[in-house]
Amino acid sequence: MSASTAPNLIAAVDEARQWDRLMQMAKLGAITGADGAPGVNRACLTPLDREARRLLIDWAEGLGLSVSADEIGNLFLRHEGTDPGAAPVMTGSHMDTQPNGGRFDGIWGVIAGLEAVQAIREAGIATQRPIEIVAWTNEEGGRFAPGCMGSMAYAHYKPSNSWDAVTDPEGISFRQALDEHLKAEADIARRPLGGKPFAYVEAHIEQGPRLEVEGKDIGVVTGIQGSRWFLVELRGETAHAGTAPLSLRKDAVQDMIRAVTALNALMTDPTDVLRFTVGRIEVLPNTSNTVADIVRFTIDFRHPDKDMLIANGDAIEPTIRSAIKGCEVTVTERFHALPVEFDGLVTDAVEDAAAAQGLSSIRLPSGAFHDAQFMVPICPTGMIFVPCRNGVSHNPAEYSEPGQLAAGARVLAATLAKLANS
Amino acid sequence: MSASTAPNLIAAVDEARQWDRLMQMAKLGAITGADGAPGVNRACLTPLDREARRLLIDWAEGLGLSVSADEIGNLFLRHEGTDPGAAPVMTGSHMDTQPNGGRFDGIWGVIAGLEAVQAIREAGIATQRPIEIVAWTNEEGGRFAPGCMGSMAYAHYKPSNSWDAVTDPEGISFRQALDEHLKAEADIARRPLGGKPFAYVEAHIEQGPRLEVEGKDIGVVTGIQGSRWFLVELRGETAHAGTAPLSLRKDAVQDMIRAVTALNALMTDPTDVLRFTVGRIEVLPNTSNTVADIVRFTIDFRHPDKDMLIANGDAIEPTIRSAIKGCEVTVTERFHALPVEFDGLVTDAVEDAAAAQGLSSIRLPSGAFHDAQFMVPICPTGMIFVPCRNGVSHNPAEYSEPGQLAAGARVLAATLAKLANS
Repeated sequence: MSASTAPNLIAAVDEARQWDRLMQMAKLGAITGADGAPGVNRACLTPLDREARRLLIDWAEGLGLSVSADEIGNLFLRHEGTDPGAAPVMTGSHMDTQPNGGRFDGIWGVIAGLEAVQAIREAGIATQRPIEIVAWTNEEGGRFAPGCMGSMAYAHYKPSNSWDAVTDPEGISFRQALDEHLKAEADIARRPLGGKPFAYVEAHIEQGPRLEVEGKDIGVVTGIQGSRWFLVELRGETAHAGTAPLSLRKDAVQDMIRAVTALNALMTDPTDVLRFTVGRIEVLPNTSNTVADIVRFTIDFRHPDKDMLIANGDAIEPTIRSAIKGCEVTVTERFHALPVEFDGLVTDAVEDAAAAQGLSSIRLPSGAFHDAQFMVPICPTGMIFVPCRNGVSHNPAEYSEPGQLAAGARVLAATLAKLANS
Repeated sequence: MSASTAPNLIAAVDEARQWDRLMQMAKLGAITGADGAPGVNRACLTPLDREARRLLIDWAEGLGLSVSADEIGNLFLRHEGTDPGAAPVMTGSHMDTQPNGGRFDGIWGVIAGLEAVQAIREAGIATQRPIEIVAWTNEEGGRFAPGCMGSMAYAHYKPSNSWDAVTDPEGISFRQALDEHLKAEADIARRPLGGKPFAYVEAHIEQGPRLEVEGKDIGVVTGIQGSRWFLVELRGETAHAGTAPLSLRKDAVQDMIRAVTALNALMTDPTDVLRFTVGRIEVLPNTSNTVADIVRFTIDFRHPDKDMLIANGDAIEPTIRSAIKGCEVTVTERFHALPVEFDGLVTDAVEDAAAAQGLSSIRLPSGAFHDAQFMVPICPTGMIFVPCRNGVSHNPAEYSEPGQLAAGARVLAATLAKLANS
């Protein structure tokens, strides 16, 4: 990108158009949260997800982008380069949401990619490299755990059939849902799984409070903390709540209480950097007057320090075994991602683009994991954060202002244009 | 009953016939528990429940009993007395089961009533009073909480529309389920709700270990411990599991852990007489990477001592409020039954019948609650227990031997015959 094209490009990013697209997307799965906040519940591989994808495809085809999808449903919108054989610059994020999710997490990264590419085209900027906008399948892991299946498969971190047997709360397997999805999208050109991009840059709301608190426009993301996810199953014995003496019970709920209490002690962190969450609990038979024989619960443990992630994560199973009394226990690790660091090629490009536009920025790590995590081993990768109100995410109250999102799209556009001519 | 008829009556109770009927009933909702144990899952007011009732009605009509039902679905099978205007002797129990239930809890009391009445008729014993066998609606409370709705309505402890808005886990209200049920049984004669029986005697497996441990055939039940049921709802805030600092969360799961831990301390009882159970937990949104904003859990608290029941039960809400950190909380008491004592008229008749048949017996209180509890204020009431293996109940492993159940039915037959001629 020459210096003379930059002002045209920045001017071509249309704040109102981007906001309007986000609000159109937010209608697909609209829910109302506390205090009437307008949230979204759009689980992956559902008819709602497909409706959102069709809307995106309509916009992309209107711009002349070519559309394709791979065997795990990752969707690609391609802007051609002057050298079609050159490794593409990729951008994007995901379109699925948490069950009680917001209007910006994920979907903004896809819409911002579209806005940036549209601006590049309208500004008349030729790029040597192609630019591909990607919408990854199942980033959230809300319907099928774990998340990031689409990017893990793309990066060959796991084979694309690794999660065939994973079921949603209704008992539908990932394989069934994916087969149904691919059938519904049989008209979309199929591309091979994977690739070798020149670089990957993902725009996302911060999902934390720092940019807002420090009054910064742009977060230059330096890396992502590590995550380890576990599923714990406790197996005791049902018994009559009125007759079985407490001393003789094998009560799975009480062993869950013991296990989580012991894990809380293990995970105590005065610096408040460690993240430990028990977010999902299933109890069987789950009636008030029967002692439960089965409890399953999840553990989501994250830390930016690799050694701490390994040490405390490895201590989870022995801690549980020491804490419980009457039950048998199985602890299964379902997701294991070490902390990653982003590449200077991308982080410098983002930082420079912000500075060139007069936007304030800070370098910061990401607390949430993102598809970008799995791109790190295969190409130079980075992310752009924009502020979100009170740091709230995974909640209908999630909010970023139209102007904040437009600033993010402008930095993304400049970053893509620079990388695509590098 | 004269002394000369007793041997005929005892001989007329048919062990194999009673067992065969129980095994036919056990097919309706058959499930397989751990180690292949043959359990039953037959929730109240379901098509399976109605199938069981139709089978019972077929048997009763084959014997010449008259069939009727009241507005809450309680089903009555009437053996006429020589004085049809005399207050009837009632016996019976319930036909619904826990979700992971056994083949004997409840249903045996109904089948034993039928066996006893059949034996009385086959022995040619005329009874002055009518004998009514009752199958109460929703004793278990497994689908619609609380249990004992049918007997509570019959005894006018609560109006029969008290639970209209209670919903099952699928969101179906008790009113909807009952309306559908009454429509499906529109051909059955409707009788007014309530009545004034001469006495009520209910046969049931012990659901505890005492009879087996002490080697006794028959339990002469002296009363039922009190029960208090609560529903606790904690309301916090959803947040992103990877970004939200633990110190700032309003995590409903963690407040549930705090609440139950504090309740465990409150409910500590070195004598192991107190019963405290958290058997049902619901978490929202219940995904592994979102901090939960809503947790609902149940408390089932029982004690034979009225003062302890009141003191510890009343301490539940303040204990929870002191323990939790970030959430709002609502504690709703859904069921409150003080301990009851049975009447000497019935307990003596049971004890005498066992002794006359050469069966060993002990007097003991019931740990479980039963429909009999609500009959205490309206007529002399008692119960007959038989041993069950290892004291196990609310589980497919629940088991009593055919001979143990036949002994119980013989004691029931003699008790009914005596009371019906008193």
